[in-house]
Amino acid sequence: MTTSMNKTLTVAVVGATGAVGREMLKTLHDRKFPATCMRAFASVRSAGGKVPYGDEELTVEELREDSFTGISLAVFSAGGAASLRFAPHAVHAGCVVVDNSAAWRMDERCPLVVPEVNPEHLDRHKGIIANPNCSTIQIVVVLKPLHDFAAVRRVVVSTYQAVSGTGQKGIEELERQTRDLFNARDTENRVYPHRIAFNVLPHIDVFLENDYTKEEMKMVNETVKILDDPAVKVTATCARVPVFYGHAESVNVETVRKISAKEARVLLSQAPGVVVYDNPREKMYPMPLFAGGEDPVYVGRIREDESGENALNMWIVADNVRKGAALNAVQIAEELCARDLLRVTDNNAFLQ
Amino acid sequence: MTTSMNKTLTVAVVGATGAVGREMLKTLHDRKFPATCMRAFASVRSAGGKVPYGDEELTVEELREDSFTGISLAVFSAGGAASLRFAPHAVHAGCVVVDNSAAWRMDERCPLVVPEVNPEHLDRHKGIIANPNCSTIQIVVVLKPLHDFAAVRRVVVSTYQAVSGTGQKGIEELERQTRDLFNARDTENRVYPHRIAFNVLPHIDVFLENDYTKEEMKMVNETVKILDDPAVKVTATCARVPVFYGHAESVNVETVRKISAKEARVLLSQAPGVVVYDNPREKMYPMPLFAGGEDPVYVGRIREDESGENALNMWIVADNVRKGAALNAVQIAEELCARDLLRVTDNNAFLQ
Repeated sequence: MTTSMNKTLTVAVVGATGAVGREMLKTLHDRKFPATCMRAFASVRSAGGKVPYGDEELTVEELREDSFTGISLAVFSAGGAASLRFAPHAVHAGCVVVDNSAAWRMDERCPLVVPEVNPEHLDRHKGIIANPNCSTIQIVVVLKPLHDFAAVRRVVVSTYQAVSGTGQKGIEELERQTRDLFNARDTENRVYPHRIAFNVLPHIDVFLENDYTKEEMKMVNETVKILDDPAVKVTATCARVPVFYGHAESVNVETVRKISAKEARVLLSQAPGVVVYDNPREKMYPMPLFAGGEDPVYVGRIREDESGENALNMWIVADNVRKGAALNAVQIAEELCARDLLRVTDNNAFLQ
Repeated sequence: MTTSMNKTLTVAVVGATGAVGREMLKTLHDRKFPATCMRAFASVRSAGGKVPYGDEELTVEELREDSFTGISLAVFSAGGAASLRFAPHAVHAGCVVVDNSAAWRMDERCPLVVPEVNPEHLDRHKGIIANPNCSTIQIVVVLKPLHDFAAVRRVVVSTYQAVSGTGQKGIEELERQTRDLFNARDTENRVYPHRIAFNVLPHIDVFLENDYTKEEMKMVNETVKILDDPAVKVTATCARVPVFYGHAESVNVETVRKISAKEARVLLSQAPGVVVYDNPREKMYPMPLFAGGEDPVYVGRIREDESGENALNMWIVADNVRKGAALNAVQIAEELCARDLLRVTDNNAFLQ
């Protein structure tokens, strides 16, 4: 990290009061990100409050279009509308943006990066780097080594997603509804269209014209962009389950060349960011219960699928707030430092 | 039901004190099954107790090898070991058995029947008819019309299964663990190998040599037997979710001929036992919350899968204790009456 050693490196977390924003500050601190100054931004509603950064507290500043002067790197997690509006101004001020929203992910100018998978895409960044959707991140770190070895052709994935994917309000909804049910009180749906406690909702994000949800199409489109191979076809069904932390995914992968379950286990145990946790005889398989608060993507239940030629089934679990959001964004920031890419070449690249 | 009109029809429910046994008695009563006498059996531990049958109460009798004299029909839900031991004696006494356990399902002598799908298989019964696994029943009523129309070739299914599939003790485990967590007490795993509250377990029934669970292989093998077509290939991942009643299934189906989502909706809306509940714009899709206590199999989220030629995605939900167990068994009994098949042709068919 030669660039940052000898000069100031002011870092901003935008959306610092949300679940992911707080986790970003924690992750930046825990991983000793070489910031010389850390600043926290949020909407005017939250400005003036405090957020923890290690043993310190940062005073939350109001996010404005002219907030970014003197800031080298901003990590955004304030929703798509804020990213669309403020990220171009950040770049204009010479600040590199790592954006956790969906706003810029499919923009051709913006690399969509999982550092274990496609760090080289960072080299062509123009000021905004997009952090993929949580469900996408955990599947691509597993698909990548399989793709390199055997050429992935088709992926059928069904997800079991935690309420923390919706942020703090999702966590509160599941907690409140569960408590109400156990106290024989009526439950209220404030966040989700139907009750989530003791239920499963096959509905995450909004429905699109093709009857898929936006969440499902994120998995389809982002996976292809990250693997950089249009020959990879993905179809997804995304469901919300009454779990607080940790997304699980049941994944069926078809490849051009055959991979045995044994070979897949070897490949995956060598893959960065992946932990193979697969010993059914000892009742060891990935679960949200064990993945919460952990960095790696866990994969288990690896087995050959006899219904298709050259197909495998797997079960993938990761903490959706960590590797699925904050950790991946910080890893991108680290990789930008390592590659000496914390600079903006065209300040007007994203301004109209 | 001409056979049963003019003579006695004594019916026994074996395993009458369990969750499914009680539901069977309720279903037999609610659907006005033409029994002239109803009897309830269980292990010696439960003998002497009472179980409800409509407004009456039945005294539970101890199940013995010589219990079946004078009984025309016995519906078993007492576990595989009891079925293996007692069903042959029932047949020997001239009693036709509808068995809810896995014990006889793959036995070539035993039809495996979902009345909406393969009632004609009943015609060749030899005394024991097997009721399929809950997860299988709800998928085959949906696959059948698609198979008839377009020839199903491959099915990739991931399940979201309720704790009631494990019986009353599964329900109690989820309830107790949830309550303990909300009272800041340690949780205890009595029924499942790991905590089920706010977690997902990719593990139902025991693991087999091929690293699939027995539950997953039931779906694979039973589906082929019921559809009576070895060209249908199935692969399954079965997971337990913290839901009390109602199994959900995310299903990807590949067919020889193309079916549009629209055609599938028309076909399925005409299929017996199936309700198409599929209006994403109005946030209408099947969920365990709505399926609990209901008879039909609900299907929604029907959409074409662009990752494969001639493939569809669907989301299927049913009450696992009703259509998944008790109701299907009673429907088999009704069909046996309607087809005048409540008789045993070879009393020794299943005795060694």
